Amino acid sequence: MERLIVDMDDVLADATGQFINYYEREFGIRVPRESMNHKDEMERFPDNHDAVYNFTFRKDFFRTMDVNPYSQEVMKELNAHYEVFIVSSAMEFPNSLPEKLEWLNEHFPFLHWKQFVFCGRKNIVHGDYMIDDLPHNLETFNGEKLLFSAPHNLQFNQFKRVSGWREVGELLLK
Amino acid sequence: MERLIVDMDDVLADATGQFINYYEREFGIRVPRESMNHKDEMERFPDNHDAVYNFTFRKDFFRTMDVNPYSQEVMKELNAHYEVFIVSSAMEFPNSLPEKLEWLNEHFPFLHWKQFVFCGRKNIVHGDYMIDDLPHNLETFNGEKLLFSAPHNLQFNQFKRVSGWREVGELLLK
Repeated sequence: MERLIVDMDDVLADATGQFINYYEREFGIRVPRESMNHKDEMERFPDNHDAVYNFTFRKDFFRTMDVNPYSQEVMKELNAHYEVFIVSSAMEFPNSLPEKLEWLNEHFPFLHWKQFVFCGRKNIVHGDYMIDDLPHNLETFNGEKLLFSAPHNLQFNQFKRVSGWREVGELLLK
Repeated sequence: MERLIVDMDDVLADATGQFINYYEREFGIRVPRESMNHKDEMERFPDNHDAVYNFTFRKDFFRTMDVNPYSQEVMKELNAHYEVFIVSSAMEFPNSLPEKLEWLNEHFPFLHWKQFVFCGRKNIVHGDYMIDDLPHNLETFNGEKLLFSAPHNLQFNQFKRVSGWREVGELLLK
C-alpha cells in the first residue's frame, strides 16, 4: 500500500476561513478571501499582523475550524486504498495539540489515532505522496508532492497543484 | 548532519518508575523494579492490569515523570552533533500531548519545538539512528536501531543494546 501524507490547516480544515472569522469578530472588518490571493500568510490581512498570529494561541481556534468541502468523502475512500497519515505542524501551538486530535476524531472518525502525527518540522516523515498547502513542507519530502491550493500559495509554480478535494480524488482514486 | 531519533517514555523519562509510584499510591504495594525484568509491559505488575493501563489517562501522569540519569547532559551534547528529533507515541493518550510538550520544555530547554514529534506509529519517521525501548518501534526503522534497556525488553536480543545514557554518549559521541 502506498503511503499518503495529508496536512490539516488549509487542507482538511478551513484555517483561512477561521482567521477571517476571528479577524472580523476582533476588528469589525470582514476581509474577503479573494483579497488574500498571492499574498504571504503574514501579509494577507490589512493590519494587526501580530494579533492575527496570536489568534492561533486562543482556546478553540483549532477545535472549531470548518471542514473543507468534500474532504471527508474523499478521505474515506483514500483511507481504503492508501496507508494514510495526517501530519500537522502543531507543536508551535500547545493548545492545538488536544484540539486537533478532538477535531480529527469528530470529523474523520474513520481514521485511527495511529494515523496521526503532530510535529514541528515535516522533513522527519517519509512516504509516497504528500498533500500540503505550504511549499516549505513539500520541499523536503521524498515522494510525490501535491500543493493544495490556498490563497497564500497561488504564486508558487514549482509543484503539481490540486485545487480542492474533488481534484485530489480524481488524481489519486483513478 | 546525521539524524538521531530519540524516544521519551523509558528512554528520556522514567516511565517505569512512574508506574511503580502510581501503583504503590493506589494499591499500597511497592513493586520492585527488578521484579519486572524480562516481563512484558502488561505483565509486570502482579495484578490490576487494567488499572495500571488507565494510569496513563490520569492528569499529570506524563507531566511529572522523572528524568532518566545523564539524559540531559548527553542529549545536550548530542544536540550539538546530530539533527535530533524527539519522537513519542503520544496519540493514544490525549492528556499526554500538552504534558509531554511541557515536560520537554522544562527538562530539555535546549531543544526547540521544531524537534518534537508526537505520533501514533513510528514507521512514519526516518533517520540515521533511533533510540527506543520498544522493539516494534525499531523494527520498521530504516537506520541504525538502538534498544534502550528497560525491564520489559531484556528478553530481546535482535537489536544492539544501550544500557543508560552514559553508554549512549560513549557510542554516539566518540
